Amino acid sequence: MIETDIVIIGAGPTGLFAVFEAGLLKLKCHIIDGLPQPGGQLTELYPKKPIFDIPGYPSVGAGELIDNLMEQIKQFQPGFTLGEIAEKIDKLDDGTFIVTTNKGTAHKAKAVAIAGGLGSFEPRKPILKDLEFYEQEDRGVEYFVKDPEKFRGKKVVISGGGDSALDWSIFLSNVASEVTLVHRRNEFRGALDSVEKVQELKSAGKIKMITPGEVIGFKGSERIESVDIEVNGARMNVVTDYFIPLFGLTPKLGPIANWGLEIEKNAIKVNNALDYQTNIEGIYAIGDVNTYPGKLKLILCGFHEATLMCQSVYNRINPGKKYVLKYTTVSGIDGFDGSRKEAEKAVVKSID
Amino acid sequence: MIETDIVIIGAGPTGLFAVFEAGLLKLKCHIIDGLPQPGGQLTELYPKKPIFDIPGYPSVGAGELIDNLMEQIKQFQPGFTLGEIAEKIDKLDDGTFIVTTNKGTAHKAKAVAIAGGLGSFEPRKPILKDLEFYEQEDRGVEYFVKDPEKFRGKKVVISGGGDSALDWSIFLSNVASEVTLVHRRNEFRGALDSVEKVQELKSAGKIKMITPGEVIGFKGSERIESVDIEVNGARMNVVTDYFIPLFGLTPKLGPIANWGLEIEKNAIKVNNALDYQTNIEGIYAIGDVNTYPGKLKLILCGFHEATLMCQSVYNRINPGKKYVLKYTTVSGIDGFDGSRKEAEKAVVKSID
Ligand SMILES: Cc1cc2nc3c(=O)[nH]c(=O)nc-3n(C[C@H](O)[C@H](O)[C@H](O)COP(=O)(O)OP(=O)(O)OC[C@H]3O[C@@H](n4cnc5c(N)ncnc54)[C@H](O)[C@@H]3O)c2cc1C
Ligand SMILES: Cc1cc2nc3c(=O)[nH]c(=O)nc-3n(C[C@H](O)[C@H](O)[C@H](O)COP(=O)(O)OP(=O)(O)OC[C@H]3O[C@@H](n4cnc5c(N)ncnc54)[C@H](O)[C@@H]3O)c2cc1C
Repeated sequence: MIETDIVIIGAGPTGLFAVFEAGLLKLKCHIIDGLPQPGGQLTELYPKKPIFDIPGYPSVGAGELIDNLMEQIKQFQPGFTLGEIAEKIDKLDDGTFIVTTNKGTAHKAKAVAIAGGLGSFEPRKPILKDLEFYEQEDRGVEYFVKDPEKFRGKKVVISGGGDSALDWSIFLSNVASEVTLVHRRNEFRGALDSVEKVQELKSAGKIKMITPGEVIGFKGSERIESVDIEVNGARMNVVTDYFIPLFGLTPKLGPIANWGLEIEKNAIKVNNALDYQTNIEGIYAIGDVNTYPGKLKLILCGFHEATLMCQSVYNRINPGKKYVLKYTTVSGIDGFDGSRKEAEKAVVKSID
Repeated sequence: MIETDIVIIGAGPTGLFAVFEAGLLKLKCHIIDGLPQPGGQLTELYPKKPIFDIPGYPSVGAGELIDNLMEQIKQFQPGFTLGEIAEKIDKLDDGTFIVTTNKGTAHKAKAVAIAGGLGSFEPRKPILKDLEFYEQEDRGVEYFVKDPEKFRGKKVVISGGGDSALDWSIFLSNVASEVTLVHRRNEFRGALDSVEKVQELKSAGKIKMITPGEVIGFKGSERIESVDIEVNGARMNVVTDYFIPLFGLTPKLGPIANWGLEIEKNAIKVNNALDYQTNIEGIYAIGDVNTYPGKLKLILCGFHEATLMCQSVYNRINPGKKYVLKYTTVSGIDGFDGSRKEAEKAVVKSID
């Protein structure tokens, strides 16, 4: 059982920044996310795109912003349960919560912050016979590239025509023994860079392309041994260890919708911006996942909400203890790892 | 009469970022600030210090953050009335406002955002006979260095023992014909760099030091011609064009306190975080200057408040018009100066 002060569901910008604000209050956090990497929509949907409305950044890459947030919270040593979806919540008699994932990992904490954005990302799946069998663990169908090392020296077939399909084809061309990219059309839609790079790798024989093509079936008894592909009305069979369909993700509020929280338009209602607490005391909702009058689904709003939430959790965990706000510039930051950051101190020094 | 969509009182981080969010909604802003430069507390009180809790910045200098905000809002061409204090407000029958400064500059707008922080900064003044005479315009006493060029080739006497006194002595040693620094003690309190630099300039004869000393009087009929200084019980007279006492600033809510707004603990009450509107419709209070349950006086909270305020002003100015939130990443930014910022577009391109 993982124990912490605040269990945060969602490793998007809101959940990540909450770790920082909690750390200033000496509260520890553990983050659960269904995706294999932190960053939420920013790393999953638009990692290379610039954002123009982060205060103080005339422009910042979405991936870069997440890197900076990870750097900013590092000293507060957040725990991570990645690639698992928070599925179940139980409130104990002493007011603490246990959050359990789809893989059975249990997390115990005095407060829960749902920073689940638009929900957990579910892959759009191809409609294929026996898919349910092959998508079981280690049978060869993968919707996310969690650990690229898994594919080292293996044959992979990737399907899709957008950025993910292009970028993972490029990346895995250096890792896998063979990469085959299958797409229903000749045209790909993505960053110019990526399209050009794939063209180059194809010409160099490092990526095989099958277009216009479509994976239509599997072969293999224990796991995938090959896939059947339809090309221009004809059929071919490609031997492979993995099939990675990358047809995009749709966010679903999912299991959280059944936790007894007040839901409005697919978002969790919170107490009118006071501290972003839900109808269940001790459960907060921050960032894109919440709703209240005037709510804007913007990154900068999630930062503010995370900050007020942490203050409220502090009061919940330390009832009656008076908290005096400290400026980081004045007080510095003491990391849980023993590090200290501080402004250069003024000196008192005579001049002669 | 200056006309705009939103008159913002206060050029601190909150007021500056409001210009950006207003710009996204095609609303123009004009900012009034009593200080000679934008940046509020950050540039006036701790320009060289790092801040550790700006989201996405593991560390950023206060001055640097303001520079970045100025860069971020540039394309929305905010107007500035600097060095003047907003003193009077009138609401016209058509719901617009006129804000007038202590120097008589009038500003007309459909909405007013007070981003006044802890109030307008008033200099701590020495207690000296005839100070009121000499502090009138161009008679030689200056509490702020608005335009350093004013002092080119002139003699200046600076008084004080902190960062401002040190830093302006250093800066003006290259501009003025003579800089004399007077302080009641031998010890100065400030950044190590600055103290060492002043020591160096003193040794090089570029700054004259009188310590422990105190300016005790003025001579001059039309304007200052010299100051009397007490040094170790003795008295001396130093010929000078300017006397700049830098004894620190205290913020005062000042005239705004009499505008009929609900005030609580020296801050302006707003409607419980809905859109940060005050008891007077069309007047908003954002950043350090406002108060509501759960309020935290943090820079990142001011950014959020500025954003919600702008949405509300948009609705006020465009009643009934439905606004659909646009992501800057997706829609890009069209500056009022004709500039356009946008993410690189995805291409649709065939690979052969
Ligand atoms: C193309 C695009 C451009 C955008 N541009 C901008 C912009 O310019 N400016 C701006 O401010 N905003 C922009 N946004 C919106 C911005 O990305 C969101 O506001 C932001 O990501 C919200 O952050 P969050 O942390 O609240 O949620 P998210 O980033 O959505 O992260 C939520 C995380 O929670 C996880 N999760 C959800 N449910 C569960 C569960 N049950 N178990 C485990 N994990 C779960 C998800 O996997 C996800 O990683 C843009 C969005 C898109 C798609
Ligand atoms: C030493 C120090 C360290 C700090 N460290 C941090 C930190 O680490 N993190 C953090 O988040 N915050 C920190 N703060 C607080 C932070 O500086 C404030 O939250 C921030 O400045 C508030 O911004 P603002 O724009 O609301 O107001 P301000 O920055 O106070 O700006 C208000 C402006 O309004 C002007 N004004 C007021 N009234 C009038 C009037 N009637 N007419 C004209 N102009 C007027 C003032 O001149 C001023 O320039 C620190 C503060 C100090 C002093």
